[in-house]
Amino acid sequence: MHISQKLEQSRRENRATFSFEFFPPKTAQGVQNLYDRMDRMHDFGPSFIDITWGAGGRLSHLTCEMVKVAQSVYGLETCMHLTCTDMGKPKIDAALKEAYKSGCTNILALRGDPPREKEKWEATAGGFRYAKDLVKYIRDTYGNHFDIGVAGYSEGCEDQEDSDLLIDHLKEKVDAGATFIVTQMFYDVDIFLNWVDKVRAKGITIPIIPGIMPIHTYAAFMRRATWTKCHVPPAWIEALEPIKNDDVEVREVGKGLVAEMCRRLINAGILHLHFYTMNLAQATRMVLEELGLTPDMETPLEKPLPWRPSLALGRREENVRPIFWRNRNRSYIARTQDWDEFPNGRWGDARSPAFGELDAYGVGLKGTNEQNIKLWGKPVSIKDIADVFVRYMNGKLNSLPWSESPISKEADTIQEDLVDLNRRGFFTINSQPAVDGAKSSHPVHGWGPRNGYVYQKAYLEVLISPEYIAEVITRIERDPDITYYAVNKAGDLKTNAPGDGPNAVTWGVFPGKEIVQPTIVETVSFLAWKDEFYRLGQDWANCYPSSSPSRYVIEDLIDTWYLVNIVHNDFRVPHGIFPLFNGLQVEDMEKPLHTVGIVNGNEASNGDHSAENPAVNGAAAHTNGTVHTITDGVNGVELKN
Amino acid sequence: MHISQKLEQSRRENRATFSFEFFPPKTAQGVQNLYDRMDRMHDFGPSFIDITWGAGGRLSHLTCEMVKVAQSVYGLETCMHLTCTDMGKPKIDAALKEAYKSGCTNILALRGDPPREKEKWEATAGGFRYAKDLVKYIRDTYGNHFDIGVAGYSEGCEDQEDSDLLIDHLKEKVDAGATFIVTQMFYDVDIFLNWVDKVRAKGITIPIIPGIMPIHTYAAFMRRATWTKCHVPPAWIEALEPIKNDDVEVREVGKGLVAEMCRRLINAGILHLHFYTMNLAQATRMVLEELGLTPDMETPLEKPLPWRPSLALGRREENVRPIFWRNRNRSYIARTQDWDEFPNGRWGDARSPAFGELDAYGVGLKGTNEQNIKLWGKPVSIKDIADVFVRYMNGKLNSLPWSESPISKEADTIQEDLVDLNRRGFFTINSQPAVDGAKSSHPVHGWGPRNGYVYQKAYLEVLISPEYIAEVITRIERDPDITYYAVNKAGDLKTNAPGDGPNAVTWGVFPGKEIVQPTIVETVSFLAWKDEFYRLGQDWANCYPSSSPSRYVIEDLIDTWYLVNIVHNDFRVPHGIFPLFNGLQVEDMEKPLHTVGIVNGNEASNGDHSAENPAVNGAAAHTNGTVHTITDGVNGVELKN
Repeated sequence: MHISQKLEQSRRENRATFSFEFFPPKTAQGVQNLYDRMDRMHDFGPSFIDITWGAGGRLSHLTCEMVKVAQSVYGLETCMHLTCTDMGKPKIDAALKEAYKSGCTNILALRGDPPREKEKWEATAGGFRYAKDLVKYIRDTYGNHFDIGVAGYSEGCEDQEDSDLLIDHLKEKVDAGATFIVTQMFYDVDIFLNWVDKVRAKGITIPIIPGIMPIHTYAAFMRRATWTKCHVPPAWIEALEPIKNDDVEVREVGKGLVAEMCRRLINAGILHLHFYTMNLAQATRMVLEELGLTPDMETPLEKPLPWRPSLALGRREENVRPIFWRNRNRSYIARTQDWDEFPNGRWGDARSPAFGELDAYGVGLKGTNEQNIKLWGKPVSIKDIADVFVRYMNGKLNSLPWSESPISKEADTIQEDLVDLNRRGFFTINSQPAVDGAKSSHPVHGWGPRNGYVYQKAYLEVLISPEYIAEVITRIERDPDITYYAVNKAGDLKTNAPGDGPNAVTWGVFPGKEIVQPTIVETVSFLAWKDEFYRLGQDWANCYPSSSPSRYVIEDLIDTWYLVNIVHNDFRVPHGIFPLFNGLQVEDMEKPLHTVGIVNGNEASNGDHSAENPAVNGAAAHTNGTVHTITDGVNGVELKN
Repeated sequence: MHISQKLEQSRRENRATFSFEFFPPKTAQGVQNLYDRMDRMHDFGPSFIDITWGAGGRLSHLTCEMVKVAQSVYGLETCMHLTCTDMGKPKIDAALKEAYKSGCTNILALRGDPPREKEKWEATAGGFRYAKDLVKYIRDTYGNHFDIGVAGYSEGCEDQEDSDLLIDHLKEKVDAGATFIVTQMFYDVDIFLNWVDKVRAKGITIPIIPGIMPIHTYAAFMRRATWTKCHVPPAWIEALEPIKNDDVEVREVGKGLVAEMCRRLINAGILHLHFYTMNLAQATRMVLEELGLTPDMETPLEKPLPWRPSLALGRREENVRPIFWRNRNRSYIARTQDWDEFPNGRWGDARSPAFGELDAYGVGLKGTNEQNIKLWGKPVSIKDIADVFVRYMNGKLNSLPWSESPISKEADTIQEDLVDLNRRGFFTINSQPAVDGAKSSHPVHGWGPRNGYVYQKAYLEVLISPEYIAEVITRIERDPDITYYAVNKAGDLKTNAPGDGPNAVTWGVFPGKEIVQPTIVETVSFLAWKDEFYRLGQDWANCYPSSSPSRYVIEDLIDTWYLVNIVHNDFRVPHGIFPLFNGLQVEDMEKPLHTVGIVNGNEASNGDHSAENPAVNGAAAHTNGTVHTITDGVNGVELKN
């Protein structure tokens, strides 16, 4: 969506909105951290974000990459900056093409700073001299695909202090096809509003977005003011100078000053605020909270769908996904990125038949072995694994090999059941409670337009040991309201689903709209998920040395246990699934599973792994002198070696 | 669906099923009557129907036409008979092509009777000699598209009494590609079952369907028995002969005899019964009721959708329709018959943009002027029109110009509101009450697979006088839960619908399925319906002489009143729409609207129409001596002349 459309919308609704600017970090770890931060800052509800242009080879690639991830994975409407500095036409073309392919529809066209080694800005050979040339080129090449923003300098810029001349230049940029203006940072509202009046007097009517720089530290505040030569009202210095050595105090007072400035802007009819976040969340969040612009229980963020919609090219209409990737959004985006069409309205023929292969998209376990072992410990028994799951279900662990994010608030109503089930050795991978028509504004379950109702069928995806799989399926098949799919690593599938079609497990009814059914359970995608599920399990096992007890117990789990998804189709029954497991408890859970290799009838050497798992209940991993067959540990189930 | 699949399904469910055979009537009125009867007999729940082949030009066309109407309009799975008699290959090809185009997938291939003028059967030049040749030809030409039935003669046939030889012939027909057998009528179950054993012994394994002839009159019973040379058990004669002059008694006793015979067949594992209805409903219905096979409140007919699905070519997957044609199903089928794709899952891009033009499909008012005047009287005032609507809402009138069938049971819960509204001069054209999750087996609101829930938003389509249209719209727009479309004859449209998309007003949630939303409200189709609506009104007006008071009052209504559809989007509110009309009542409803033509300032002659409306409240249609402008009658609304 074009930024100017979004601004028009907030103007129509007379509602203050805001946006965030990020820049490409220097390190890979920095990039990952920034993605996590962008993900969290999505929840503040920005109208869009900006990614600045990283001049130079690696950084400009990173800008394109970040735009793509922000659009497709985080569903953030993104504006890509583009500068003339060091950019010949082919580079400009490549960058625009990347932006287009990412689904990006907003460009901020800038001249850019001079390259570090030069003092004065010079045009690149075959490149563009002025931002207005770049604007015109984008407009000529892409028509109205891109909304094009340009910079406004309310207090002069580095190499030009004549404010009137700068407004003339601004007019030229607008005449070349720009559709919105983002200003440099400033602290003096009077100067800014005066400048806006002058801009309007010149016949420039497109929206003007003020750039807001929150205050992180006194030193940074002063440095930036000096560098941009913007006027700092004396009252600001008076308020901040005395406390300049107390960063916390500076942020607190700074928050008040910046928020007051924002209030004056909003009162003057400047409804959209653009925050220079400097890739940090805190100072910006404090200002937004002070302004009452962050979502809370009373005014929760409007979620268009129960999952985060992607804004990648061709995906804007997508509104149906399988439930399986709910905790691995990024992987779903990756494995479906090559689809020609995305399900819209229904999961039908529109869907491309194939999910991307695991290896092609690097969807395996993230993190180093050390990090993962630190997270999930060194399990030597089913009980140890159960403890990991229980900690996750209790909110004491932020991820599992199959879940990138902590357990959701939505699980609150079934949390006790989940904890209990995992404690008994039934490992829950994914779940949702039944919802029988909650208001679409419901703080936990709600999504979609106002005045609607949302529904869910109870869902449970659970890893079941071979000793109980037959019993659980027998119980399921007795209940006409329950449908299931069960599969093992080898891909043996068992189901009682009626026909091949999908089962809608989340849907919503809204005024004047078709029914929306954003989440489904379905065969083909379950089998694709199953591959990913068992691969992630193997990746977890592989974090441990090849003949270690932890490697062994996890491998045994994924080699022999069944992944089962269960839907209770009567969404008016609140707790229909858990009774299936009444009275069932995996036996001998505490018994360590040993690394016993039966090779030609001889017991293979275990090595000494006792050093590996000191933290896990103090249980050392050594055999007790007798030869175990592998089947001992899993109660009589035959295991192929 | 193939008949053999249907039989397999009833075998799997161990459930007795049945089918009906009809023949092409000789007169046009007979055809219309038969359609009405087929429509009613659809509600008995036959698995399929047969249409016999009408040998000869007009009748064979009629067979094709009836197959098409049965498939597309009445949604009856139809088996078309086809005979070799008088049929050269080009005629066979044409008939098969017609069947194919109708969506028909079942053919009963017969040799046929000799043409009337000949005593002995002879093959037509270039035609087929034996049914087996026809079977082979259909199989060769159409592969497995058609299920092909053949006739079985359990007691010999006209020109061959050797039962064994006939079984040999049957075997040849099966070997040529037949997939089911329908037998001649019979009354002796022992002979039949014995014959079945012989057929099976010959290695014929395809399903055998017994032909059942209910008893209408004693004379017909004896005539048919004699003609088909089938054995009548002596007990039957003993039971029927003494009462042979009392038709009612014969049908009653005959019902018992035929039902007993059917019971024996069902007990012998012959689960499907094919009734030779002779185009009559009563005798067949009596037998079915005696057998407990007709639907009732406890075992209602399973409705796959809230409206009758069409089985026309390409329409089997159709599952979304606009609500507007609910009472004019046949017209909807006709006006959309040329669509390339039919909405399935959602009303979206799949839908062809255009509805057929009114004139191309003859969707105007049915019946002669005399018939229609007899039905709806000779209204001279709004009050008279209101009376017509009130009678319809009270179930005392079976049709309105806009409704081909009586008011549905579904309206029971809102009937009083409807009657009241019409009495006050707001004419309701279509409506449905809100339903907040009725079981899919609900006898009135239910549809779709078992163990599901169905929902409806309250809907009202109403004709509103110009004096109140602004007030009603003002009230509507105050309520965020209500969406509407209002249009007049000229096509001026007003709506508060959010965007162009459809509004689902009926939907269902079923175990293991996607959400189904079979009924929607939407702009393009509403405008197509609006044309039909005003045309039907004009057709009604045209039933009366050109300057008659009735013509005038109806024309005034359709020229100036607004057609408004209203959806209350909160389906949990049972009666949300009717309060919009609180306190509103069309004024001066009883005042006759005169046929006053202001021509050059002079009152045109009315003629004497008093003879036309003696029945309507005794109000004679003559002016009261003063010159009225037309606006007098509609309270100040300007009307173009």
